[in-house]
Amino acid sequence: MNDKNYPDLEGLAPEHQNEWNRIAEALVAAGRVAEKKYPAITSVRRDPSSPLAKTIDHTLLKQGAGATQFRELCAQARNWKTYSVCVPGSWVKLAAEELKGSGVAVCAVTGFPFGYDSTAAKVAETTHAILEGATEIDMVLPVGLVKDDKILDVFEDINQVVKAAAGVLVKVILETSELTPLEIIRAATLSCFAGAHFIKTSTGFASGGATVEALKLMRLVAGPLRGVKASGGVRTREFAIECLELGIDRIGTSSAAAILGFEQAPSGGY
Amino acid sequence: MNDKNYPDLEGLAPEHQNEWNRIAEALVAAGRVAEKKYPAITSVRRDPSSPLAKTIDHTLLKQGAGATQFRELCAQARNWKTYSVCVPGSWVKLAAEELKGSGVAVCAVTGFPFGYDSTAAKVAETTHAILEGATEIDMVLPVGLVKDDKILDVFEDINQVVKAAAGVLVKVILETSELTPLEIIRAATLSCFAGAHFIKTSTGFASGGATVEALKLMRLVAGPLRGVKASGGVRTREFAIECLELGIDRIGTSSAAAILGFEQAPSGGY
Repeated sequence: MNDKNYPDLEGLAPEHQNEWNRIAEALVAAGRVAEKKYPAITSVRRDPSSPLAKTIDHTLLKQGAGATQFRELCAQARNWKTYSVCVPGSWVKLAAEELKGSGVAVCAVTGFPFGYDSTAAKVAETTHAILEGATEIDMVLPVGLVKDDKILDVFEDINQVVKAAAGVLVKVILETSELTPLEIIRAATLSCFAGAHFIKTSTGFASGGATVEALKLMRLVAGPLRGVKASGGVRTREFAIECLELGIDRIGTSSAAAILGFEQAPSGGY
Repeated sequence: MNDKNYPDLEGLAPEHQNEWNRIAEALVAAGRVAEKKYPAITSVRRDPSSPLAKTIDHTLLKQGAGATQFRELCAQARNWKTYSVCVPGSWVKLAAEELKGSGVAVCAVTGFPFGYDSTAAKVAETTHAILEGATEIDMVLPVGLVKDDKILDVFEDINQVVKAAAGVLVKVILETSELTPLEIIRAATLSCFAGAHFIKTSTGFASGGATVEALKLMRLVAGPLRGVKASGGVRTREFAIECLELGIDRIGTSSAAAILGFEQAPSGGY
């Protein structure tokens, strides 16, 4: 446990520092958090000595994918020793069975890919996924409410999922391509105060994916204990390594074969 | 109540008739339905004398849309007298408030747009949406399980939502652009046996939308009491009217302004 569970804001532009402070003060004023400090967690940051494969969430989120493709995804994850597989809620059970004893984690997406599902649906998906064997939850936040500056509603949406996950690691997808830099600060700050362990750039289904600009902002806001995941359009080893050099902790991709230098093509996905 | 709650299969190709029979027999054998007959419902077909506007689900399912856009959607629906608005789960409450007393229905999407959410999440979204004022549910079925021919799993997914909706009208989105004609027959047949009131072509977020070929198959499988909704890429008055002439009952579109000849552009959507 590290006591410094808030970010070093000095790297941020003054208007971005102001946004962080505005959010923090609004949450304190509303009684949602006790002080301008993120909830305490044990660090989930990447061990810099871990191999590239161990930074990868091997991802299959294609609409029509079936059991054969999800089994192949799991076999690849096991062989390549990726950190996890990232799959839809209805495929968690199969993935957890396939990966039993492998040391590969199972991430389930929630409210995917648009994030405008009701909080009730996201909570139900979270609870169900964990029961079926998910050990990480990747949720999409409500992008429209971020844009509308509905601070407390966004906080509640994330916080309800974090509570339902009951200690299981939660990543919040901000969908950065749809946000201005100021909205990225807002979304990232709200996610961290609401108890997320990780903030993540993209679903892979919006107008863009991870960018260096967004990752730098997110790395600053996440603070010393929380992770940042680059996703959407991370298709080459070069860009994956560039992300890690920025202090990014996890890579979400359906291009693990290309990134890790294996011949086998990925099963699909974004 | 009409006793003839099964389709006239004669219009279908022999292999499609065989598929309908194969599904029906598998469901009877598994005890999911008592006989080769759809569950009885009161007809939800379109009254042929109703004006074009009354066939339209005025739709906004854009990820970043906020309160201003949803309010505009509702004001348009009220002014143009569309059948409904079609909105995400988290915007049902606002839509129901805006449309109180207007006679415009509120449809909520569930498992949208990929349909691979767990059944538990779809059920929670359905229950929540109805509590908040939704009077129709547009769910996406699990496309991968249709392709995998997991008949009973697809049936259960739809049937659980129908049960949770407890009499509220349920439309099942087949995502026809991702299916072969045989898979369209399979998905449509399973939806009707599982108690859906309507079958619907598309989310608008896959590789294609409503086609005349898919609509003709679905119209035959739906039988005399159930509705068919054309959605995804219905952007002109000409195509909307062509759909209605095929016996289609509802049009889902974000192009209501263009279709109805109003100058105001739609708020967005697919």
